[in-house]
Parts: sequence; structure tokens; C-alpha cells
Amino acid sequence: MSQVSIRDDEVDIVIAAIEPDLTSFLEEWRAIFSRFHLIIIKDPDVKGELKIPGGFNYDTYTKADIQQIIGPSNAATFSGYSCRYFGYLLSKKKYIISIDDDCIPAKDTKGIQIDAIAQHINNLSTPATPFFFNTLYDPFCKGADFVRGYPFSLRSGVSCALSCGLWLNLADLDAPTQALKPELRNTRYVDAVLTVPARAMMPLSGINIAFDRELVGPALLPSFKLAKEGKFRWETVEDVWTGMCVKVVCDHLGYGVKTGLPYVWRKERGDAIESLKKEWEGVKLMEEVVPFFQSMKLTPAAKTAEDCVIEIAAAVKEQLGQIDTVFTRAADSMVEWVQLWKTVKTRT
Amino acid sequence: MSQVSIRDDEVDIVIAAIEPDLTSFLEEWRAIFSRFHLIIIKDPDVKGELKIPGGFNYDTYTKADIQQIIGPSNAATFSGYSCRYFGYLLSKKKYIISIDDDCIPAKDTKGIQIDAIAQHINNLSTPATPFFFNTLYDPFCKGADFVRGYPFSLRSGVSCALSCGLWLNLADLDAPTQALKPELRNTRYVDAVLTVPARAMMPLSGINIAFDRELVGPALLPSFKLAKEGKFRWETVEDVWTGMCVKVVCDHLGYGVKTGLPYVWRKERGDAIESLKKEWEGVKLMEEVVPFFQSMKLTPAAKTAEDCVIEIAAAVKEQLGQIDTVFTRAADSMVEWVQLWKTVKTRT
Repeated sequence: MSQVSIRDDEVDIVIAAIEPDLTSFLEEWRAIFSRFHLIIIKDPDVKGELKIPGGFNYDTYTKADIQQIIGPSNAATFSGYSCRYFGYLLSKKKYIISIDDDCIPAKDTKGIQIDAIAQHINNLSTPATPFFFNTLYDPFCKGADFVRGYPFSLRSGVSCALSCGLWLNLADLDAPTQALKPELRNTRYVDAVLTVPARAMMPLSGINIAFDRELVGPALLPSFKLAKEGKFRWETVEDVWTGMCVKVVCDHLGYGVKTGLPYVWRKERGDAIESLKKEWEGVKLMEEVVPFFQSMKLTPAAKTAEDCVIEIAAAVKEQLGQIDTVFTRAADSMVEWVQLWKTVKTRT
Repeated sequence: MSQVSIRDDEVDIVIAAIEPDLTSFLEEWRAIFSRFHLIIIKDPDVKGELKIPGGFNYDTYTKADIQQIIGPSNAATFSGYSCRYFGYLLSKKKYIISIDDDCIPAKDTKGIQIDAIAQHINNLSTPATPFFFNTLYDPFCKGADFVRGYPFSLRSGVSCALSCGLWLNLADLDAPTQALKPELRNTRYVDAVLTVPARAMMPLSGINIAFDRELVGPALLPSFKLAKEGKFRWETVEDVWTGMCVKVVCDHLGYGVKTGLPYVWRKERGDAIESLKKEWEGVKLMEEVVPFFQSMKLTPAAKTAEDCVIEIAAAVKEQLGQIDTVFTRAADSMVEWVQLWKTVKTRT
């Protein structure tokens, strides 16, 4: 695979509006976002009119749009943070970038504002190297190369299907850790991008990601909802589940996942100790989820992301379904999502 | 596994003297090395008396010592960069740190001199996390923690058996890459340590490493010598081979390998274009070596690093031996090394 070039009109930036007033969020991002088309999905549980400042090129979708397009029975899938998945479904662009509405542009160690969109595009447009770990990080970064011993046959790399960015200030901890260490903030700016090796699983966070919708779009799915999850990242593991689905799909289809740059700055939101009172079951469930995905093997019959998701869903039902009904529901949602994806694709 | 504390007298710093005059090298490192015991091995091919400035606590070994202890037939194993392995063999300490004699302390992004020894000790004394990738890097670094979704059962980690440091200025490229990009220097300081995930292979460089000799010492071995290799790092892949042996052993025995900090500053040495004339065969051989180690599975009978090396050697002979005699020789050297290791251990 060689470097590809990505045009501005091949990108949708998808924003989940958890608060109706996006004014300050979009003003912070104006210089970076304004060249791109935005898809803004209003959390169907949120009241009040969306407020969006002028000068942006966007489409908005609300509860009524969701119900109209997919019917009222599935609409609950798209509540809270998950409303962004409705944007993934409707986008017709090759690339999607999604950033939480409590994040603003971060600064690098020299105090220069980071263009998170440009960095994500860079990650997606240069190859990934999942089959051998390069100790000097992404060999396609400026000034970098492959380290001695790296096989030449692996140096062309594979397509990068997913770029996972990171966060300064409020780190993406779970509620127990955040409650235990209320003062802990991430201040370490690590100037690196790396490909997560094939067969290694990692906890994707949906806060700041970009992906190639044509390659893996159907695997970026809403399906794993905790019974009592709330509106804060630390109360959910849906995106972590999604990330492992995508990673398994990428490993199977021969695509790469990068992590590292770009950083965004996460503002404070929520109260971790209050969240703990919700008998958060994410911690317990991950003990089953991680080994499941680590040992997941897809068959050669799975040739597209849709095929892969259907195979994963069947394995979830069979292997995890007996442990907890949350898994059976997740498996059903995964199948419904693929059906939705195909329906929307056929319709447009 | 919880954090362990490492005393100064549990560490040997092993230096391979490729040049007899170590004065400027040791003066650069004085503040960092002087608290530790040094083992200095003089490359048996090098002429001239070793020059070592006062104020260090050290033992030196020369060609005569090598021949006396292991007999003249094996002595060639310890020529050039490989003489350091003789130090690994003789050390009685739990931890070994080894840094090439063309490296000096590097500075971090704030201009502060890096204590590479303290950082290696920190890497070895805190757990490694090879079974799930933490996107915020080493969770045991100051100010870091596990990211949301990281299973609690994996948060105690495993013993870190190997710490691979990096290099600023002259990057560790192979001769063809260095010849093609003569101006390329590594200037990117990445402020991170990470555990290389289980089952992922990486190109270890022996320039700047530390390891737990009791856990994996027998796997840090000299065995893979190219027919025409010379005295420059880019002319050898011996350490890359060794690294994959150690990684396979760590994956099998449940230990971790970390990479990243500390950096050292590599001074210029050699002429890449001259090196290319040696018909450097490393590039060609890595095409066979990497897939071999990636698919290597040890049996449950292998319970120590010695056992593992013997099993790897048998597989090398069987699977790679027919491709090139360099592999048969490597397999034989691996077996001899384990015998030597056991002999020296019994004797002392």
C-alpha cells in the first residue's frame, strides 16, 4: 500500500450533540472544522433547540429524523453518545472523524494548537504496519523510518482503517479509577503514532477517532449497552466493545489500527463518585469481553466488514450469551445494525 | 506482580569495548555509571591496552580471559559487538544493563540529561502489561493509569524481563536505508514507555538494553552471525535475532518486554555506503526469520529460559536449516550457549 491523498470532500466530521448549544464547542474548532462537512446528531433524549453558529457546512438530525429513517423500534439504539452512530450510518463519505462535544483543540509541547483533523487524515492516508512492531513508532511519520531488522516485504504496510486519538487533561478512566484518583489528569504529551500489532486488543475510546467508512464502517456499531449506563464516558463501555469488534475485523481483513496523535483537550464533565452509585457493571463484564475478543477467529468466508460483524455476533450469542443477557442483546443489536447498514446503503 | 525495588548492587553494567580507549565514553557517563559495578569486555579482535579512567568500580576481561574460561574453540562467538555476551555469562547480578560505547547520555525535551540507568531500572521494577494494550502507554509511569475498559484482572501485570531503550541522533537503521538517506537523523523524543503486546515481534537493538538475567539471561545470546558482518551495528542482525528469541521466551513464560524510554545519544560511526559493499545479507534473511519467530510455539515442557532456547534451536535447525547454513550454525551456537551458561553457573 502506498500513501493515498484524501480530499476535504471525502470526509464527514460527525458530532454527537449531548448538549443542545454547540456554540462554544464549534467556535473553539472553527479554524479546523470549517473546511469540512459536519453531520450533527442531536441526542434524542436532549431537550431544546440545537444552537449552531454560522459559517459551518452541516446537516443536523434529530429524534424525528431517526424515527423516520429507521422506525421507532430501533431508535433507542441511538440515545446518548450513541447518537453519533446514526451519523456513521447516513454518511456517504469515505472517511469519518468524530470528536466528543466536551473536547477542544489541544496544544503540543511548543504551545502550538494541534489540528486534530489533519493528523487523523495523515494517519489514515499513510500505511499501517500491524505485522511487526517498529520500535521508532510510525515509520511513515516525517523524519522516521523502519528500524534495522524490519523485513522489507512488510515495509509497504497495509491500509489504515482506524485512527484512535488521545486526550490531554481529563484522561479516559473508568468511574472507579476516576473516583479513586479525582486529581489525576493526563499531562503527558507523547509525540508518537503507532500501529497496534495484529492480534493485540486495546480499549478504543470513541472520544476522538477517525476511520475509513468504506473499509470498516459496518463494524463501528452501537450494540453494547449497560443496563444502567448514563451520559458520561466513564459510565459506558460501548465504544470499548466497538473497538474490539473493529480490531478483530481489521486483523481478519488485513487492515491496520493506529493509536497516539492527535490529542484533544477534554474539559471536566460529570462527577465520578455519583456515577459509581449506578452499580456500574462495566468493570465486571470486561473480564469476559477481553478474553472473548482475544480468542476470536473469523472464518475465510467473512470477506467484508458486514460478514465479519455477523460472525462475531453469532459467537457472542453462543459463547457469552449464557453469562449475561447484556451479551444476547448486544448480539441482536449487531445483526440489526448490519441490516440497517445494508438498507440505508441500498436506499441511497 | 507488584512493584519491586532494585538495589544498586543487583545491577551489572556490561560494556563491550570496541575501541580500547574508553576514557571519553566513561567520562560522559561518570555521574550515571559510577554507583554501579561495570563489566568491561574487550573485543578480542581489538589491539591496544584498555584505557579506563579512575573512579569506577569494574572488572575487565580480554581475549585471554575468554579463552581461559570457555576454551579457544568457542572464543570466536565473542568477537566484535558480541563480546558483551561474555559479560552476560559471567555476571552474577540479577539485572544487566548494556549500552554501546558510541553512545552518550541524551537530553530530554527540556534539555535535562537523561539518567538511562534509572529509567531502565524503573522499567524493570514495574510490571509489564503484554495481554492488553493500554492506549495511554505504561500505566505504571508517574501520572498514568489504565484506560477505561482495561480488565481489572490484568492490571497487576507481569514481571518485566527486558527493557529496550531507544536512540536519538543516529537511528538504528540498516545499511541500505542509512545509505539511501544519509542525512536522516532521529530527532523525535517520544516521552513514553510501552509493553510490546504478547505475540507481537519487534526488532530489538542491543545498543541500549536492560534485562532480568535470572528470568531470561540464557535467551540473551550470541548466535546469528552473518558471513561477512563487520564492526558496525548496521552490518549485523545478531541482536535482532536475539531479541526475537527473548520475545518468544517472554511470551511463553509470561514475562513482559518494554520499549521506549530511555534514549541515549548515538554518535556518528562508520560509512553506510562502504558497509553496503559487503553484500550484506541481513535484509534477505529477515524475510525468513520474522515469520519463523512469529509462528514459533513452545511446548509446555519448556519451563525455563534454557529449555525454551533449546526448543527454539531445534526448530531453527529443522525449519530454517535447509534454507541457509547460517541458520544451522545459529542453532548449534544456541545449544552451545546454553551448555556454556549451565557450566559457568555450576562453576560459580
